[in-house]
Amino acid sequence: MRTLKLAIAYDGTAYVGWQRQANGVSVQQLLEEAFAPLENGTLRTVAGASRTDAGVHALGQVASIETETDLPPIAVCRAMNVRLPADIRVMSVEEAPPGFHARFTAAMKVYRYRISTRPVLPPFERNFMWHAPEPKNIAAMREAAALLVGRLDFASFQGRNATVRETVRTITRLELLELEGEIQLWCEGDGFLRHMVRIIAGTLAEVGTGLRTAASMRDIVNARDRAAAGTTAPPHGLTLMSVRYESEQGPRAEGKRQK
Amino acid sequence: MRTLKLAIAYDGTAYVGWQRQANGVSVQQLLEEAFAPLENGTLRTVAGASRTDAGVHALGQVASIETETDLPPIAVCRAMNVRLPADIRVMSVEEAPPGFHARFTAAMKVYRYRISTRPVLPPFERNFMWHAPEPKNIAAMREAAALLVGRLDFASFQGRNATVRETVRTITRLELLELEGEIQLWCEGDGFLRHMVRIIAGTLAEVGTGLRTAASMRDIVNARDRAAAGTTAPPHGLTLMSVRYESEQGPRAEGKRQK
Repeated sequence: MRTLKLAIAYDGTAYVGWQRQANGVSVQQLLEEAFAPLENGTLRTVAGASRTDAGVHALGQVASIETETDLPPIAVCRAMNVRLPADIRVMSVEEAPPGFHARFTAAMKVYRYRISTRPVLPPFERNFMWHAPEPKNIAAMREAAALLVGRLDFASFQGRNATVRETVRTITRLELLELEGEIQLWCEGDGFLRHMVRIIAGTLAEVGTGLRTAASMRDIVNARDRAAAGTTAPPHGLTLMSVRYESEQGPRAEGKRQK
Repeated sequence: MRTLKLAIAYDGTAYVGWQRQANGVSVQQLLEEAFAPLENGTLRTVAGASRTDAGVHALGQVASIETETDLPPIAVCRAMNVRLPADIRVMSVEEAPPGFHARFTAAMKVYRYRISTRPVLPPFERNFMWHAPEPKNIAAMREAAALLVGRLDFASFQGRNATVRETVRTITRLELLELEGEIQLWCEGDGFLRHMVRIIAGTLAEVGTGLRTAASMRDIVNARDRAAAGTTAPPHGLTLMSVRYESEQGPRAEGKRQK
């Protein structure tokens, strides 16, 4: 057996999400079906680092496959893309060490949430941005975001039907970029609860419009109750940007090494 | 009667083009149907500056309507957007002088053609870029583009079934931008023949891959024959970016005034 690591990008608009489900077509299903012919029709599990929701996109999803095929990585990449629809692409394939699992060994993930503040939502962006045109106080949103950075109990930021009981996570970066007619929220952390980035985006937007104060973020965290936080921002504004693994040295770790 | 000027943006993927046609849904048709209820169901012509082809997009299309409605422009904009699908948006509406016609009085149009040179086409861009990953000599493409700037007979760059006989046009700007994994062609001129920008893009790409020399551009122009030029690049890489009118002062004209 051999382990392959895949870099995957997709427009999630047409899918029920990453994970296989009975009620519609998932990204995982199409990847597994595109891979099967490379191994005489055997259906291998394509394990994704993040189980993105319906409508959520990915530019830097990572997946692993255990396989017996001896095709070179570049041939696997090309053969899968021939079978996949154009809204799902395998961007690259490489050999991974035995035992590599895209989800279990993921050390850090980066998500981007895009909010359009234009009066009319431009059509090119309709599937990639949340249209929330009300004027927003960015300084207050930044102050609120800073209160969520660190190792905290994010129970208040977990979707209601989630079953995960251990809700402590570390957010290492939560930054707001102000662009022309757009606010981008960049969120980096060691793990994310169900709907966590979307609830953070929705709550920060409420701080932006003045519905909540920045300081109230502390009370929301302490409440450990979903009802304390704000609305869940819609899925289509969210994109998984990248995943980092323990074996990989981030730019910071590289810097430390050189010293 | 009153004349309104509309700024319109659309993702052309799902449409047969700007112009009403028997064989499918056009952008013009949906705009006219979205406007009709504002005038008791009377179907008014929405005249567009550019009759974009099937699959071609617009961020800066301009259209005019002659109407008897006394609704303020902002109300017309909102009412139309409520009725339009999200891939077509009226970005703004303003009063125009009587006799203003978006097509007949257009003085200058700007088109952008996007070419992706990445090995794998990112899924977000699949409907907005031509995937042509072969390595390209940008310097040669720029040299060739420079030979198309000016007042020339563009008969060689007109689609075969076009009926226009007067084929002299002025291109005032034809620039190549090199981005990460992408080449953008920006084309500004006083008027364009059918498929002209797409044939220019296809021919320049052939110069880029070495199939033609930059200097051969002169022979292509002199031939006045479609067969002399290169392939017609696909429609989905093309976007109408803006339209300028004689009554409007461009940035250059403004500069002159101030002197």
